[in-house]
Amino acid sequence: MRFLGVQPERWFPILSWSRHYRSEHLAADGLAAAIVTLMLIPQSLAYALLAGVPPQAGLYASMAPLVLYALMGSSNTLAVGPAAVTSLMTAAAIGAVATQGSASYAQAAVWLALLSGVFMLLMGAVRLGFVANFLSHPVISGFVSASGLLIAASQLKHVLGVPLRGSTLWEITLELPQHLGHVHAPTLMMGLGMLVFLLWARRRVKPMLQHFGLSARAADMAAKSAPVLALVLSMALSWVFDLAAQGMKVVGHVPSGLPLVAWPSWDASSSAMVRDLWLPAVLISLVGFVESVSVGQSLAARRRERIDPDAELRALGLSNLGAGLTGGFPVTGGFSRSVVNFDAGARTPAAGILTAVGLALAALYLTPALYHLPQATLAATIMVAVLTLVDFSAFARTWNYARADFAALTLTFVLTLAMGVEVGLPAGVLLSLLTLLYRTSRPHIATVGQVPGTEHYRNVQRHAVQTHPQLLGVRVDESLYFANTRVLEDYIATQVAAHPSVRHVILQCTAVNDIDASALESLESIHARLAASGVQLHLSEVKGPVMDRLNRSQLLQHLSGQVFLSHHQAVTFLSRV
Amino acid sequence: MRFLGVQPERWFPILSWSRHYRSEHLAADGLAAAIVTLMLIPQSLAYALLAGVPPQAGLYASMAPLVLYALMGSSNTLAVGPAAVTSLMTAAAIGAVATQGSASYAQAAVWLALLSGVFMLLMGAVRLGFVANFLSHPVISGFVSASGLLIAASQLKHVLGVPLRGSTLWEITLELPQHLGHVHAPTLMMGLGMLVFLLWARRRVKPMLQHFGLSARAADMAAKSAPVLALVLSMALSWVFDLAAQGMKVVGHVPSGLPLVAWPSWDASSSAMVRDLWLPAVLISLVGFVESVSVGQSLAARRRERIDPDAELRALGLSNLGAGLTGGFPVTGGFSRSVVNFDAGARTPAAGILTAVGLALAALYLTPALYHLPQATLAATIMVAVLTLVDFSAFARTWNYARADFAALTLTFVLTLAMGVEVGLPAGVLLSLLTLLYRTSRPHIATVGQVPGTEHYRNVQRHAVQTHPQLLGVRVDESLYFANTRVLEDYIATQVAAHPSVRHVILQCTAVNDIDASALESLESIHARLAASGVQLHLSEVKGPVMDRLNRSQLLQHLSGQVFLSHHQAVTFLSRV
Repeated sequence: MRFLGVQPERWFPILSWSRHYRSEHLAADGLAAAIVTLMLIPQSLAYALLAGVPPQAGLYASMAPLVLYALMGSSNTLAVGPAAVTSLMTAAAIGAVATQGSASYAQAAVWLALLSGVFMLLMGAVRLGFVANFLSHPVISGFVSASGLLIAASQLKHVLGVPLRGSTLWEITLELPQHLGHVHAPTLMMGLGMLVFLLWARRRVKPMLQHFGLSARAADMAAKSAPVLALVLSMALSWVFDLAAQGMKVVGHVPSGLPLVAWPSWDASSSAMVRDLWLPAVLISLVGFVESVSVGQSLAARRRERIDPDAELRALGLSNLGAGLTGGFPVTGGFSRSVVNFDAGARTPAAGILTAVGLALAALYLTPALYHLPQATLAATIMVAVLTLVDFSAFARTWNYARADFAALTLTFVLTLAMGVEVGLPAGVLLSLLTLLYRTSRPHIATVGQVPGTEHYRNVQRHAVQTHPQLLGVRVDESLYFANTRVLEDYIATQVAAHPSVRHVILQCTAVNDIDASALESLESIHARLAASGVQLHLSEVKGPVMDRLNRSQLLQHLSGQVFLSHHQAVTFLSRV
Repeated sequence: MRFLGVQPERWFPILSWSRHYRSEHLAADGLAAAIVTLMLIPQSLAYALLAGVPPQAGLYASMAPLVLYALMGSSNTLAVGPAAVTSLMTAAAIGAVATQGSASYAQAAVWLALLSGVFMLLMGAVRLGFVANFLSHPVISGFVSASGLLIAASQLKHVLGVPLRGSTLWEITLELPQHLGHVHAPTLMMGLGMLVFLLWARRRVKPMLQHFGLSARAADMAAKSAPVLALVLSMALSWVFDLAAQGMKVVGHVPSGLPLVAWPSWDASSSAMVRDLWLPAVLISLVGFVESVSVGQSLAARRRERIDPDAELRALGLSNLGAGLTGGFPVTGGFSRSVVNFDAGARTPAAGILTAVGLALAALYLTPALYHLPQATLAATIMVAVLTLVDFSAFARTWNYARADFAALTLTFVLTLAMGVEVGLPAGVLLSLLTLLYRTSRPHIATVGQVPGTEHYRNVQRHAVQTHPQLLGVRVDESLYFANTRVLEDYIATQVAAHPSVRHVILQCTAVNDIDASALESLESIHARLAASGVQLHLSEVKGPVMDRLNRSQLLQHLSGQVFLSHHQAVTFLSRV
């Protein structure tokens, strides 16, 4: 079925999966939704704390986005909502334009979500999903590790009960000593206690429960509910001993009810705010998209399902618009919530809709209970969660494997820590692009000779091969394009200057997947220069598509030499001439 | 011989060629120098006019740079001095910070030369010559064609005798109509007359002289001296009829004597000037370097000689420093003067030193004679010279050959014409880099099958090949790196999802010249996802350097499948399992 030239199913995957929806799907999705809801309550509050927005914004950001994602998303198990790194980036972006706690801060969060949504929708509309590929793994790894450390550092103030204002590791380190005398003891005890409990739960609970006879899956689920237990436990402690009265910061009053759909008011300061926030919004979109697609792809592959990156962009864009219009902040497909959703057995995006219903119920009826929840507990939840983000082994791995990747990783890591998320990421991307250009601009070029007794031709520097004094066989292991043509010109000029007996140069094109216009001109000038000194240029083993293109140029018409199907044919023919 | 760890000969090629200098070299170099000197007098004055600096600056910029280039340059025939495109860029850069004719204008020209010199020396010191490769041929072609048109348009004011202030084609076109009523008739007659004479000389004189029995080389040299004849002729006319008194603009008083070596004075405005000029200086350096290396390389190749791009950077850097310290403006290895030098038989850079001596004599004794030289004649010389820069056929050629190159060419051309040299060039470079990323991020990936009865494996969509239901052979025609790994992940996920019977995926790596850290992780996640759905991953035909690198990673240790030497071995083995 097509509508105005597009298949509605491709844009709205819900139209296809909902048609085959069965009762056993509902059972599986319902169970998954119940588990995810339980897990999302502390997580949503924690990421709201991290982003600096009111706690209810965290709950709101996990409702509308989940429903909207279910309409357009191509993953069956991705769970959309606030995530650690994007929440940190949100805090950094908004912190630069508004004071935390002010009305304009919450409004900036809304604008950031709307801008991210619009940007993702635009990218999805013109199928620009591929630009996310320009974030290399080392850059992402360095960025995420540094973000994890920054997030943990940013939560120190909640665990110590002191006001820390810095946002980079550098600033926080400088600021910390002057506050150490004023640490709030009950807060520190609560924070450290919860940290220890959560770390213990993470490491020990699953094997312990398995030891007591639980199935691996049930034990895993139980271990993952530790944050809920921590939440209930600390709420109880805080309520019984009225810790808030002793100066411990608690979540406080969270308005009950569902979010209203509202377009943010536009006043004199809004246009300045939008101008300041669009670049951070672009970065948040890219990072969120990359995280979401990675998670979605790895979960889909486990069931031999597929996701469509451009559909993901559209669905995430819609989700962010939804988050913005319902008083939330930027969202993405989070790693931990999606894995829980998958492991709990979610079959379709309906699980997301049911989770949203669960959170709506929580927002309607549970918020009074959250009053006494200590912020230190939420901070401890965040600190334990982001530990998984920090991956120091990547440094050793890339150092061993490829120095250029190590450099990109380290630069991104150091700059993110020292100068913040909005400097580190672009710098890393730039460095990895320059590295790519540098690498492809210096392709491997070999002079080749015949392996005796065979029709194979190999690098003269690596193998004992036969060459002919009048022939120069050259193989270039890269597509020829503007950044590397001069290297080939140079190589041939050097070789021909060094071997005055050479009369024929044969360019073996096995690894040449493309010849752009610059490379074509370069071949023409190589040809002309060789001709001027009495040397013919020949080509061998040119690939089909490259040959098609060369046939549209003038090169082959006035080529002094010939095009040979195989390098061996060329050598056999030319050595007899 | 090494000195402090470097070979002085590599940094100062003069140390090697001067040791073998013989008297026949001197004869050849002397003749070439005489011819080039004659040609350089009008050309230097013309480019000074184009750059907007006093006429003597043109002469000065052709003295010290030639001598300094001879010390460090690696080309035997390159002639360094003001050139058309760099002079236009100089005028554009300085026009933005100073008023033409003012003292600060000449000082800005000096700073521009010094900054270019420093930048080139720095690039040469760290061997960054390769960055010039990032200027693709279509971008250079579009830029040079547009520059040619801009230069011709900029000279209209001298030929028409009207004041035109615009610097882009757009501005000049808008401005021209209001001046057409005030055209200075004698100037126009002189300008048009010289234009017609020079165009005629360019086309007709060489065949005519050959017809009268001159050798091709002599006829060519005579034709190339037409600008000198035009200069003498128009000076004579101007002097006899005292055209300056009738309002024709002439070169006027040119101070006799040699340039003084002087560091420009540093005052309050200098730091602002340096801040404004460093970016144009970088662009001028890159363009100058690319022009110089192209000319040098093509001339050297004709005699099976070689040039060293990094040595060229150092030599050009020194030349620009010299130009700056002697009151000149940015210089480069010019096309026309170098070709004349080569054709006149120059053998060593000593020809350049002798040319500098010739120009010094001209600056000492000929300047009074230049008083009456009409600016219209110089403008006509420039207009005819830059016609060779404009190459409209490149549009049709790239359109036929590669649309992406056509787009880069057109964008650069249009933006240079409409918004000036400093917008057009960077925009073109950016577009060609994005195009490169886009292209390599979407590599050609094929599912391959066996050509019946052979050991060859080809694309199933192009050839009638045999496949095995449990095997999936995939060939990717590009190095694997961060921007294209997701495409491979995607392709394999799609294929495996579409073929539920597949148990083995074999990645044929014939065209994979590199696997960066991102691609390695990507292979690991492809491997993990395949393993999770019960499919093994195998590699075949991995190149030596790639294999070395993979051996330093963890991938091969926990690979579920194997690494096969040939794809056929893999298929034979796995289809039997």
